[in-house]
Amino acid sequence: MGLYEDLLERIGDRERVTVNETVLEQHSKGIAYHAPRKPDVVVFPKTAAEVSDVLSYANERRIPVTPFGAGSSLEGHIIPVQGGITLNLTMMNNIIDIRPDDFLAIVEPGVTRMQLNQALKKYGLFFPVDPGADATIGGMAATNASGTNSVKYGVMRDQVLGLEVVLADGKIVHTGGMAAKSSAGYDLTGLFVGSEGTLGVFTRIIVRLHGIPEATNAIKASFPTLAAAAEAAAAILKAGVSPGKIELVDEQTIQAVNQYKQTNYPAAPTLFIELSGSAASVKDGTELVKELCAAENAVLFETEDDSGERAKLWEARHHAAFAIQAAYPGKTMLSTDVCVPLSKLPEAIAETRKLVEEYGITAAIFGHVGDGNYHTVLAFAPSDAEEVKRVEEMNARIVRYALSHGGTCTGEHGIGIGKRHFLYEEHRDSVPLMQGIKRLFDPNGIMNPGKIFL
Amino acid sequence: MGLYEDLLERIGDRERVTVNETVLEQHSKGIAYHAPRKPDVVVFPKTAAEVSDVLSYANERRIPVTPFGAGSSLEGHIIPVQGGITLNLTMMNNIIDIRPDDFLAIVEPGVTRMQLNQALKKYGLFFPVDPGADATIGGMAATNASGTNSVKYGVMRDQVLGLEVVLADGKIVHTGGMAAKSSAGYDLTGLFVGSEGTLGVFTRIIVRLHGIPEATNAIKASFPTLAAAAEAAAAILKAGVSPGKIELVDEQTIQAVNQYKQTNYPAAPTLFIELSGSAASVKDGTELVKELCAAENAVLFETEDDSGERAKLWEARHHAAFAIQAAYPGKTMLSTDVCVPLSKLPEAIAETRKLVEEYGITAAIFGHVGDGNYHTVLAFAPSDAEEVKRVEEMNARIVRYALSHGGTCTGEHGIGIGKRHFLYEEHRDSVPLMQGIKRLFDPNGIMNPGKIFL
Repeated sequence: MGLYEDLLERIGDRERVTVNETVLEQHSKGIAYHAPRKPDVVVFPKTAAEVSDVLSYANERRIPVTPFGAGSSLEGHIIPVQGGITLNLTMMNNIIDIRPDDFLAIVEPGVTRMQLNQALKKYGLFFPVDPGADATIGGMAATNASGTNSVKYGVMRDQVLGLEVVLADGKIVHTGGMAAKSSAGYDLTGLFVGSEGTLGVFTRIIVRLHGIPEATNAIKASFPTLAAAAEAAAAILKAGVSPGKIELVDEQTIQAVNQYKQTNYPAAPTLFIELSGSAASVKDGTELVKELCAAENAVLFETEDDSGERAKLWEARHHAAFAIQAAYPGKTMLSTDVCVPLSKLPEAIAETRKLVEEYGITAAIFGHVGDGNYHTVLAFAPSDAEEVKRVEEMNARIVRYALSHGGTCTGEHGIGIGKRHFLYEEHRDSVPLMQGIKRLFDPNGIMNPGKIFL
Repeated sequence: MGLYEDLLERIGDRERVTVNETVLEQHSKGIAYHAPRKPDVVVFPKTAAEVSDVLSYANERRIPVTPFGAGSSLEGHIIPVQGGITLNLTMMNNIIDIRPDDFLAIVEPGVTRMQLNQALKKYGLFFPVDPGADATIGGMAATNASGTNSVKYGVMRDQVLGLEVVLADGKIVHTGGMAAKSSAGYDLTGLFVGSEGTLGVFTRIIVRLHGIPEATNAIKASFPTLAAAAEAAAAILKAGVSPGKIELVDEQTIQAVNQYKQTNYPAAPTLFIELSGSAASVKDGTELVKELCAAENAVLFETEDDSGERAKLWEARHHAAFAIQAAYPGKTMLSTDVCVPLSKLPEAIAETRKLVEEYGITAAIFGHVGDGNYHTVLAFAPSDAEEVKRVEEMNARIVRYALSHGGTCTGEHGIGIGKRHFLYEEHRDSVPLMQGIKRLFDPNGIMNPGKIFL
């Protein structure tokens, strides 16, 4: 029998095992520039037992398996570069339990962040990790995603308390638990988070929840230069305001967002800040932020405490990447994701802006400056070999600048396909340990091959 | 040549390689009940290169190596149960760099938490992890320690951004870095943190720092019953006050502390709470806490915003374990360390109090209730076989109660020697993965053998 027939026999549902060309095509790419490749078959499991069945079958036959969530990867994680089986986990989208008094929820991997937050609303709780896309919790755990809230609440690894994981050989294991902290043995939970589907498939995830703050205020401050905006951000962080969010967006990004979302924000380097907490602390914080922005010659300072208007403002920021893509039809996109020590951020951004001009590439710069993490979105024509070369060179220079200042090549997107060379540059002496762990967990190399390692 | 001569030749300093009986004795035990065992030799390295020399020598000859910091382990981590070499790291106590604008410091493993905080004061920064003892940063990283501040700032694993580690074969590797977050490959940093000296020896640690809050207020509220105190704590956490600390101490502990520290706190179940943040939020929070405590019939409610008096109050709490030990001369001590989901805390504590009465063991209960983590300190005579048996039985029942409610056998002390059976009960299906990692990193099993695993 062939692969399709074998899998159909195991899953027993024609709707959930498919070689339909359109479906294969949908599972051939993420949302960035990497070359697409179709899987041989797509399976939509509904249970951990089905995932286990597929993996033990694939492991015996050395067939590559690629997990797939919302499809919003920026680093080609979900591209089955060696073909084989794609496991689409979006049918495993049950919120198994919400335990408001324990500040946790237990979810299946296909639950999306917006779906979870919708269900949490009535408890006055929320799940903070917010990448641009409405990603799945499983995908976000796989890449250790973060977003605008991480400056206050931490990244995905900080939110995952425990996992059910199906290993390459089909064995189902459990890590972590429901306690807020533990020192019981090695931190396997944290090891699986960020492993990009190369160590196993998550089938159940215990996540930490947070109380919705009493008061929230959004602040938008525009500056004469990108450097001034970055300096203001650094000053705010040093002053101990503890912002809930602090995002820097350059004028090119504002222009693209205006066009995409029919907004009319002034096209200038802008900080989007959110303060949250008790009403009194938000009020005091807003005054302090205003002073610090004025000291960097802010040309515009607006606050917004209406939740509807605030949502619109943040939605604009969340759609920045899509807006940029929409602004350059026919071009594809590469997003850098470096993260530098906080004090290096203003000069890193200035250096990046210089590179953008030197290389003459269409680019927008924005990011989570409270973490020292910023993105340079480079729009280019994949057919133009010379332009591709320039983009790659510029990307490498941005990464190497970050690495030479103690930073990382990826703050939140992961290594995937595109940053594998940089992983070796960043973690030269410890990559062999990572590779040893990969071989230990997946001796036949079936789990998402071609990702993280060269 | 013998072990001593070989090591002396490598280190070349008689002051730092010793078989002196008193020194061996000092390195034979932690501060709890586990049977002591002396190492064959104690080495005091000063550099990573020396640690590497000792490890590669020991690895070739299959000689056990046990790292040793402040000696304040509660689970026998530092007892060289198979003899061999103890590496005392307290001479590696340099603060290599403080980077206030990056909110991080780079330290050697022998730096203690108080030493670091002393050096940070002038920058308005502090390092939050605060177990009772003045432990070393290396030891705290090895056990994933936490303390009273973790409810607000997280545990040791949340603070460690990067490590320099000497592996069993003497290789020196680096993990993590100076960026606030990263998605670059597997989280080796988090894997080493909490590995209790079984995967390698830390020689350099990059830790996150935090700004000292603008305002701080300490609150002490006494309650008619332990259950009422636990309920008040749960109510405070649910109300979104976000306390900086929230500690529960039972009346036996208060009595012991009064005796040990010459204080005169009323002997009743008491919550020690600290609120920190902006002056306005602390003021509002204090009012809310007062209301919530009154609702649980608090018999006494005092606040303390003077930093000297506050320090005295917290010092008393920090010395609880020592106070209990001092109160029962001739007895040894076992401290439970379970951590349960938050909502289970009141009933877990009630159940524990019932067990204490059922077994008739002298015991004090206190803990970090904001994390669901509490300690039952059991004083007993190690020579009384019947009493030892009762203590062990009671300990097992406390742990199993926590495990059956989704909790963990250790919130912050680690597995060490005493909780190895419980590790298997807690993580039955994932312990084989941990053991695989242990064999991968330390194939000859020289790194702190006899700890974590049976």
